[in-house]
Amino acid sequence: MTDIPTLEDLTQARTRIAPHIHRTPVMTSRHVDGRVGASVFCKCENFQRVGAFKIRGATNAVMSLDDRRIARGVATHSSGNHGAALSLAASTRGAPAYIVMPESASKVKMEAVEGYGGRIVHCSSDPADRQAVLERVIADTGACLVHPFDDYRVIAGQGTAGLELIEQAPGLDTVLVPVGGGGLISGVALALHYASPGTRVVGVEPGGVDDACRSFRAGRIIPVPDGTSIADGLLTTVGDKTFDIISRFVDDIVTVEDFEIIDAMRFVWTRMKLVIEPSAAVPMAALFSGRLDAGGGRVGVVFSGGNVDPDHLPWV
Amino acid sequence: MTDIPTLEDLTQARTRIAPHIHRTPVMTSRHVDGRVGASVFCKCENFQRVGAFKIRGATNAVMSLDDRRIARGVATHSSGNHGAALSLAASTRGAPAYIVMPESASKVKMEAVEGYGGRIVHCSSDPADRQAVLERVIADTGACLVHPFDDYRVIAGQGTAGLELIEQAPGLDTVLVPVGGGGLISGVALALHYASPGTRVVGVEPGGVDDACRSFRAGRIIPVPDGTSIADGLLTTVGDKTFDIISRFVDDIVTVEDFEIIDAMRFVWTRMKLVIEPSAAVPMAALFSGRLDAGGGRVGVVFSGGNVDPDHLPWV
Repeated sequence: MTDIPTLEDLTQARTRIAPHIHRTPVMTSRHVDGRVGASVFCKCENFQRVGAFKIRGATNAVMSLDDRRIARGVATHSSGNHGAALSLAASTRGAPAYIVMPESASKVKMEAVEGYGGRIVHCSSDPADRQAVLERVIADTGACLVHPFDDYRVIAGQGTAGLELIEQAPGLDTVLVPVGGGGLISGVALALHYASPGTRVVGVEPGGVDDACRSFRAGRIIPVPDGTSIADGLLTTVGDKTFDIISRFVDDIVTVEDFEIIDAMRFVWTRMKLVIEPSAAVPMAALFSGRLDAGGGRVGVVFSGGNVDPDHLPWV
Repeated sequence: MTDIPTLEDLTQARTRIAPHIHRTPVMTSRHVDGRVGASVFCKCENFQRVGAFKIRGATNAVMSLDDRRIARGVATHSSGNHGAALSLAASTRGAPAYIVMPESASKVKMEAVEGYGGRIVHCSSDPADRQAVLERVIADTGACLVHPFDDYRVIAGQGTAGLELIEQAPGLDTVLVPVGGGGLISGVALALHYASPGTRVVGVEPGGVDDACRSFRAGRIIPVPDGTSIADGLLTTVGDKTFDIISRFVDDIVTVEDFEIIDAMRFVWTRMKLVIEPSAAVPMAALFSGRLDAGGGRVGVVFSGGNVDPDHLPWV
């Protein structure tokens, strides 16, 4: 896939990954609707395999490779959900997944990757070293790079969540999506552009790492090098492919503060009884804080994942 | 209703409460099935209104009263989910609910009752005083007593969870239900007796308050006066009505230890991404610990509620 995914690319991705992923439910809550003043539909990718939407894109990439290429395996750098997802996707084809992770990565994350059959290759926390290690792994093994987000196969896979959402909750006025590297929002924006063109797509980003918001306004990628947030899945900068799609198909990007993210996460845990990770609470934070006015309409939000260390909850 | 609920009582209860409650989903997990070695179907009453199955029985009782009787309100003693549930059920008929609670009850629990419109009447923590205060409230107001569990209308209401479960997951070999006062297991045992007679019903109780288990074996009610457990919803002793039904329609009662309850709760949170309270984790604890051998079959468990104070998680 060498150009922006078409509707056919998205529907093919959907068929390709269907046997390997869950069609996650869309849940609603009177408590949420009452607080927001709108009808809110939550796409529960926290219930997805590996606990996050990332399995969609990783599976689409892995299943797109022919037998000869997949035999050499796949490789990526990710200390988070993408590494676990690529490991699981590769294992379903009996192929190795090489996951480049900093030595400082948490034990929980390393165990997740290894639990799904991934092979961890350590690097230092320096981005240049991480890239060098990844390139060496690829040169040594012939593995195929599957970037966490800046890859059209991955973007098309993530977009399947958008196709499902609009079927499960038709007629949405707005869909809110968390923005990190931009893979999820790119896929969802394309899905809605094709399948529900009247629906507005808005990205939500932590204020501490607002590279996507700044870039969207400036019309060019503006990294925020030392950005930080409790939403540790959203610390990456948008890529060339995702920024291009965001620029063309996303209506707006708003930011929220960490205290608002924690409040939203806690509200969803206590009222909806759903375990979501901080990154997944970011869209709801935009609604609760009033930073995005839902105006009484029908709003979709993507709960992107539920992988939290229960010993380190942000409010404890 | 003056005798053990019939199938017709259960189906009437179901129709009566349907507009006021959720038909909660049944969820499954590969992680759980892999650990247990069986197919496990989880009835998610943590998603129920007020966060627990208690709204079923409370609503059935409230909706059973004629206009003249409900106008005087309803009353109960409960510092937990039943008090909140009765408050909400009464409010849907515009009637007062008098909830007798010890002055030492947590702020969270008092706020829940008041949030649903209940009127708190304080008592001391002495059971005799609690009963005296409740009787005085009833004498003063003419309110109708709705006991938390030892009431056939309440039992019939709780049984609707069993009717739904067996429709959503047909052909279950065994259903596991937490046992406190016995309202839920009585209703579910009757539902399965009528609608799925081949299904075994097993109660699970914390070892520290094993009055139901002891009573079941002895054939008479044996209280455990100073029993304690992390599963604070299960500290009550079975009543005359519930013990009679348990004796006749429940196949066995097993016990689990608190560390097993905490482990099961944590596993459900981290792997199924579901917030359940300690009482709700008790059946899963019996499966994980091997105290109940599921033998590769199809097993139903009732996640009875999800009301947890996120600042006081049992493993933190």
